[in-house]
Amino acid sequence: MSMNHEEIEEMLIPLRDYEKSCREIYLANPEAFRNVVWNWEEFKERFRATDHSGYALGEEPPVFMGNLLTEQDCFENESIEAAVILHDRYAPPFYHNLKFIKIVYALRGGCRFFVQDKTQDRETVLNEGDFVIIPPEMNQAVFTGEEDAVTVNIILKRSTFGDSFYSLLLENDSISDFFWQMLYSKGSNRALVVRCGKDERLRSIVLDMCGEGLFCRKSAPAGGNLMMKGYVMLLFGWTLKAHQQKMEEVGSISASEAVLPVMIRYIRENYTTVTLTSVAKHFGKSEGYLSRYIRRETGKTFRFLLKEFRMKQAANMIENSTCNMEEVAEAIGYSDISCFYRNFKESFGCTPQQYRNKRNRVSL
Amino acid sequence: MSMNHEEIEEMLIPLRDYEKSCREIYLANPEAFRNVVWNWEEFKERFRATDHSGYALGEEPPVFMGNLLTEQDCFENESIEAAVILHDRYAPPFYHNLKFIKIVYALRGGCRFFVQDKTQDRETVLNEGDFVIIPPEMNQAVFTGEEDAVTVNIILKRSTFGDSFYSLLLENDSISDFFWQMLYSKGSNRALVVRCGKDERLRSIVLDMCGEGLFCRKSAPAGGNLMMKGYVMLLFGWTLKAHQQKMEEVGSISASEAVLPVMIRYIRENYTTVTLTSVAKHFGKSEGYLSRYIRRETGKTFRFLLKEFRMKQAANMIENSTCNMEEVAEAIGYSDISCFYRNFKESFGCTPQQYRNKRNRVSL
Repeated sequence: MSMNHEEIEEMLIPLRDYEKSCREIYLANPEAFRNVVWNWEEFKERFRATDHSGYALGEEPPVFMGNLLTEQDCFENESIEAAVILHDRYAPPFYHNLKFIKIVYALRGGCRFFVQDKTQDRETVLNEGDFVIIPPEMNQAVFTGEEDAVTVNIILKRSTFGDSFYSLLLENDSISDFFWQMLYSKGSNRALVVRCGKDERLRSIVLDMCGEGLFCRKSAPAGGNLMMKGYVMLLFGWTLKAHQQKMEEVGSISASEAVLPVMIRYIRENYTTVTLTSVAKHFGKSEGYLSRYIRRETGKTFRFLLKEFRMKQAANMIENSTCNMEEVAEAIGYSDISCFYRNFKESFGCTPQQYRNKRNRVSL
Repeated sequence: MSMNHEEIEEMLIPLRDYEKSCREIYLANPEAFRNVVWNWEEFKERFRATDHSGYALGEEPPVFMGNLLTEQDCFENESIEAAVILHDRYAPPFYHNLKFIKIVYALRGGCRFFVQDKTQDRETVLNEGDFVIIPPEMNQAVFTGEEDAVTVNIILKRSTFGDSFYSLLLENDSISDFFWQMLYSKGSNRALVVRCGKDERLRSIVLDMCGEGLFCRKSAPAGGNLMMKGYVMLLFGWTLKAHQQKMEEVGSISASEAVLPVMIRYIRENYTTVTLTSVAKHFGKSEGYLSRYIRRETGKTFRFLLKEFRMKQAANMIENSTCNMEEVAEAIGYSDISCFYRNFKESFGCTPQQYRNKRNRVSL
């Protein structure tokens, strides 16, 4: 009923027909594949300029070379939150920009990964077993030109990522800064390369995802979706445990983007005392600028973000301590208890006391 | 670095010292273990009444026999959301009541599972490979008395379950009704037994959980926590795919509890048109009763639940369709557009248009 890893890998290796067409072009003139292009026209030009083979390129590319792909283009239906798409081997490396999060994993053989860093093209080689996490809306390209290589794309909706990894976003480290940046800033231009080498455990997680995402019967979509999310969690969880020191960022961010995670971290760490005024002062900006900046970059207001941090912490205290509500309100920085009650009810649909009763009915 | 499944299983099999003490008692008088008890006093009485061996029981039980266990008792720290605890073999079956969700998996050999069904004790045999999902706050007991048997408890915080499985709760089937019941009703008294027999895949997921939860170095807790959540998702996902027809409910629910999932399903299915009045009419109750009932059973108000369903759907349409905001508001049952705008902003911290711009900046 379920395939073993060898069987899954065997099914990934053979070239599909359009990959064979691409390989013909590659074998005629590999030089034309050295750099990244924006479209087929540009590729044809480059091919002709460097060609000695006389190979005649078609009017249309052998694979789809769209520069912009939305969630609707790539997820079969709305309820699917994570999916696997095989990278087309020998396809010319062309820039594209995705509305979702993509992980490129070099399952077998290596591949080349390109990002547009300011106006420069920057190339990074991924060796077998390495992967890269690419935030949405970043111009990037991948090229795989080794016989029998398999490069796997794991795609993940942004909203799912936020839901599933919320607890990770509350951690205090550089990975969580990267993830905040990825979720909450516009057109981030940094990818995260993880050089894990030949880690059998990661390899086995990715093969399971391929089995589930590519070859599984489509019944019980809720179950399949849960499994895909589970595999994504294992991938990130194991990476954090085993490879946190092997991450490197590729690409650059603008000065205004670089400030965002620092600012979010500052608000998170000082949520009991910060005000718009104090944050503005700390970062040397006017309140009006800061307010517009946070709204523009995160899509949320300063007040909303702050309330989110506070309420999360309040719920935690109510559930896991015996503090009374005045103590909770004070601990999270509310001087006005009725304001605390009102905000709590807005966030959770019940009073703090009801929340505690509900969660804590039984105790020793 | 990571252990293989045989190694993990080998470490689970040998009896720990307190299990050996329990086995002595069991071998002296197995009859005393036939029925479930409430505490050590009751067990001692039963032991004496049926004993022919002359074995002298101690004043204190060889294992902890607490009747009520909170999250703090069983989760090492606040940030851990899922954990594994081995069941104590040969310990007398005694009722206990947990503040969290427990899954009992018969990894090796079988076990006996008891629930208190009204005033009766009801026993269910789990064979190797079967498991049972037990909601919080239910009186239940487990007995394992086979040499070399291994019974694994997987424990899961209620809040985590709600966060991780939210998408499952929106499905329209009997499993999601069970989960709603589990999360949102007080003192539910039904467990879900899944008879999956010797499913190698489930077995392998549970062995991975044991490896991670019992024997893993505790560094990078965020990574370990993500992995445990990932395994739980695989367990549920695979069960939904492969064993949905093999589930049976054990225990009974009161008439007032039985209505809750039906009511939630009715509200969910008719969220565009329902009002408190129409739901009350449909279920033949007064509005006041219904309002108090929903609040008591779920901890949320009717308005809050309804808004939650509507806003989830609105966000979905805004992200995945090209409808304008008037169309979205109408589709989800708002006749007053400014009320829709206000509620949306309360839920998501931004206007519907900002939400779309944020999510949908790039499109073909």
